[in-house]
Formats: sequence, C-alpha cells, structure tokens
Amino acid sequence: MSIHHHQHTHHTIHDMKAHLHYGWNRDFPPILEVESGHSVGFEILECSGGQITKTSTASDLTKLDFATLNPVSGPVYVKGAEPGDTLEVEILDFRALEWGWTGVIPGFGLLADEFPEPLIKIYDLTGRHKTEFLPGIELFIKPFPGTIGVALPETGHFSIVPPRKNGGNLDIRHLTRGTKLYLPVWVEGALFSVGDTHAAQGDGEVCGTAIEASMEINVRFKLHKGKTIAEPRYELFAPPTPEADSRGYYVTTGHGTDLYKASQNAIRYMIEHLVDTYGLTPGDAYMLCSVAVDLRISEIVDAPNWVVSAFLPKAIFK
Amino acid sequence: MSIHHHQHTHHTIHDMKAHLHYGWNRDFPPILEVESGHSVGFEILECSGGQITKTSTASDLTKLDFATLNPVSGPVYVKGAEPGDTLEVEILDFRALEWGWTGVIPGFGLLADEFPEPLIKIYDLTGRHKTEFLPGIELFIKPFPGTIGVALPETGHFSIVPPRKNGGNLDIRHLTRGTKLYLPVWVEGALFSVGDTHAAQGDGEVCGTAIEASMEINVRFKLHKGKTIAEPRYELFAPPTPEADSRGYYVTTGHGTDLYKASQNAIRYMIEHLVDTYGLTPGDAYMLCSVAVDLRISEIVDAPNWVVSAFLPKAIFK
Repeated sequence: MSIHHHQHTHHTIHDMKAHLHYGWNRDFPPILEVESGHSVGFEILECSGGQITKTSTASDLTKLDFATLNPVSGPVYVKGAEPGDTLEVEILDFRALEWGWTGVIPGFGLLADEFPEPLIKIYDLTGRHKTEFLPGIELFIKPFPGTIGVALPETGHFSIVPPRKNGGNLDIRHLTRGTKLYLPVWVEGALFSVGDTHAAQGDGEVCGTAIEASMEINVRFKLHKGKTIAEPRYELFAPPTPEADSRGYYVTTGHGTDLYKASQNAIRYMIEHLVDTYGLTPGDAYMLCSVAVDLRISEIVDAPNWVVSAFLPKAIFK
Repeated sequence: MSIHHHQHTHHTIHDMKAHLHYGWNRDFPPILEVESGHSVGFEILECSGGQITKTSTASDLTKLDFATLNPVSGPVYVKGAEPGDTLEVEILDFRALEWGWTGVIPGFGLLADEFPEPLIKIYDLTGRHKTEFLPGIELFIKPFPGTIGVALPETGHFSIVPPRKNGGNLDIRHLTRGTKLYLPVWVEGALFSVGDTHAAQGDGEVCGTAIEASMEINVRFKLHKGKTIAEPRYELFAPPTPEADSRGYYVTTGHGTDLYKASQNAIRYMIEHLVDTYGLTPGDAYMLCSVAVDLRISEIVDAPNWVVSAFLPKAIFK
C-alpha cells in the first residue's frame, strides 16, 4: 500500500489491490482525504478483478467468483462535502491501457436467453486510437470508468451491480476525457469510488460487457455546496463521438409498448445485419453491438408504441 | 387535383388536401403508380391538417378534431413490390417551410400528468438553418417526415398514431436529407404514404409534438426484391447532428427498472435544469426538451436498473 501526494493538489493511489472494495457501504473507511480542487490518480483493475487474463478462454467466464466482480477503488473522502451538495468529478485522462476483453457471461445481457454459451474476445490496446475487433473492423478507443459513484445514505451493504442514485455501475460511455460528472452527495465526505474501466462501449452495453480493461485514471474533484441533484448528471464540452460519426450509421429499429423489448428487437435485427452483411458469427455480432452500437429512443409518445433505434457506426469498417 | 409527371422519373403531387388519408388501410386506392428509381414530390400538410394556424393560441389545442389529425399523403403504388421485399425511400430534400408550431396537448406526452394545460409556440421557419425558440435560444432546422410508411398486411383500418411494423408515425428525427429509409413491404405495390413533417425534434419527442410544419418533400424509391426485414431500418451517410454536437451537451440521467419511468425522470431533471439555469417556464422547458433534447439508453444490462441519458445540446444557446 502506498499513497503519494504530488505537489499540493494531486494524489496518486498505487497498489490497486490494497484499495479495492466490493459493493457500496457508507461505513467503509476512506483511504484518502482530499479537498475540493484536488486531483487524484487511480490505478484501476478491470471488472473481473484479475480473474480474466489475456490468455483466458470462454470457459473461464463460467468459473467467475461473482462476490469479487467489479471491484472499485476508494473511498475518497472529500472535505466539506455534505448531503445535499453536488460533487463534480472532472475526467482528466487515462493511461497505461494494455489489453482488454469482452465477454458473454451466461445468464447476463440483453439477449441472455439467446446466447447461453460463454464467449470471449481479447484485444490488444497498445495502439493509441484504435483496436481490432476482427480483421477489417477497428474500434475507436475511448476510455471511461464504467462504475463511478459515492456512498449511499442508507446503512448496510449494497451490490455493486445495479446503478443507483449514487451513480455506481452507470456504464455511461460518455464519461470520457474532458467530461464532468456531477454526483449527488448523500453522506459526509461523499466517499467517492471508481472502477470498472472500459476502453470502448456502445450506449447500452448490450451483451453485458464492454472492452473491459485495467488502466490508470486521473480525476479532479470540485465541490458545489448547496447544489442539490436527485441523480447523476454530466456535461460534455465537445462532440460526443466524432470519430464514430464520420461515415454515418446503419440503423435498425424496434417498436412496441415496452422499450426493453423494443431494444431487444433492434439488437436482434442488428445482429442479423452484421451476420448477413459482414459474415460475423452471431456471437461476435452480439459482442460488437455491445462495444460499438448505440441505443437511442426515437419516440416515446405515440401511444401505445415507442421506437428504439440501434446505431451502428460505419466508420469501424475498413 | 393535379399530378404532374416531370421527365421520366419524377412525379409531383400537388393539391395536398385532395390526397390525404387518415389511418392505414390496405384497401385505400393508390393515387399514383411509380417504378423503382422514380422520385416523387409531396406537398405535406402539418399534423393538425390545418386546424392549427400561425395565429392559433393554446386553447385551440383543446378543440382539435382527433379524427383528422396526422393526415398522410398517398398511397403511392410501387410497381413490382411484393410482400417480403424491402422498399428503400431516399430522403432527397425539403422545401417551402414557412412557419411551424409546438404544442402541449392535454393528455398526450411523456409528462402528461404534470402538464395538464395546453401550451403552444409558433415559429418563423423562413430562416434557412435556424429558428428562434426564445430570445437567446436558436434551434437548428433539420426537416424530416414524422410519419412515413406502407400499408399493413392485415385488412381493416388502423389508427395513424402508433408506429408499427409498417413504419408510420415513427418520429425518427434522423430521416433528414440524405438518409435512406428501408421499409418492409407487406402488400402488393407497398402503398407508400408520408406526412407529419417536422422542422426539428429531439430523439424522443417528449412533449408529443416537434416543430410541426407544412412543407414539400422529395423522395426517391428503390425496390430491393427478396430482401426481407421485420421492421424499418435506415442508413445515414454523414454525422447525425454535427451542428448540435459542436459545443457538447448537458446531460441528465434517470435510472430504474423501467426505461419509460427512467426517461420521465431524466426529462424532469432536464426541465429543472432549464428552469434553474436559463429562467425558462416549466412549460417552455418541456417543449424545448421535445424539440432539442435526445434520449439515449446508457446501459440496459446492469439488472435490475437501467440508465437513460437526456442530452441537451449547448449549441442552441447564444
């Protein structure tokens, strides 16, 4: 365990395994105290907590210990933070990406019933901007933390899996470099933790995993006293996805009275399109949807049927 | 009634009121027959069918005759189209936008219970790229047809309001100039109709109306024989929203087990943000969400809670 304080305002937390916790609990003791304006660097372990390695095969996904999945680093105590405040977390940068994985974990994911067998894909992330999904298909590397949040006001231990009013496992792909995340503060000191870093993902993360990858992340805290929000918000200062946008999109739609089922259908049609057009296996197509396809709600008012659109960026194809 | 045939392949349908129909019915007689490769120009009447004018007030929205809402022009018979084919509809261009309206119609919309009173906003659309929502807020004019589809295979009359497997009231804002829409063909000749043109809208159309506006639209048909799709698809050939993207987004989120309720919360928070930050009335904020804010599904796998993000483009503020 080692915590270095650089200059007056930057802290770096090394030895990630010593600072991991599982689930949310307001009684976890802080590993570091910072002030508004300070930045902190975290070394983040990918979401399997080391259970998956770059030589793993699909069968390793059936042996996962779920109790130690999705570890987060922290908590960090922000001085002066009180319930009713908002904690701004500016995403400064990411470093030291080496490799990543996407998996289909049996029983998990938007189309869990249709993909009962484990699947895995391993990526080389040493390229700066892109990584190969398959020959002819290159994904844009856009790192972000999948899980980022603060302690809940309720006492007790809460699973890390579902996101909640404290943020947590939001899997919001837009929390990339430069974005500011605004988290509601629920306990004194906020008790911030972060983990589950992803190298790329589509809006939806439909197979249940993104490109899961260990990396370093630097963030800067700013406390907004007396600014109260009910759920997380965030702010982008540049176009969200200029690389992916550049050549347009192929889009499938699903309609119906239930947005979840409409999303399932839109992804089913996209898998069909990827199989028919590019010769992908259905499993690869499903994983590609998870790391590259964006779900948008086209309309939510023409009762009783809503429309979901699944956007496939054409720029990923050579 | 007048139908002009220009050159060999372009048809223009004038006298829009003579060619309107209400709802979908496979037994409506076609007003025009075309071949694959032909283009057709339609003069489209905005969704109230002339009940709302540029001098209307909010109370006029309480007197709407729902039986004649959302008229569409057509149907157009595409020679050779048979069930199991796909009809491509290329969106060529839009002309003759003059004015438009956004309304809150009591009982209709994502937050119908919270906005029980009628509201209306009238726009000048004679500017080429932008229109003023309020002083200091300018929306990008990006016309598209809200309702576009083909006849259903089932006999009988079907309401125009919900979108279905035939397309219809999709309200997909991305069906702008250059987009290709792919519609499944369900009856011989396809029987294509279009209407409900919008000058601008966010993904979701949350208050129930967009910038509703009469205009001319030109489309080109192409028949894909033997290509079978279950629901509409579309294809963009350029970045979806470069103007809106340019300065980034302010984003609210809602989470929960139901994507519809999560969307409601995300929009409630966005209304709160617009009221607090820009001094809008709640009603104006709700309408602004409908014409400018995009709903995205951030994650749909971290059971039991999904996350919806509502994206407000900062570029609309001076």
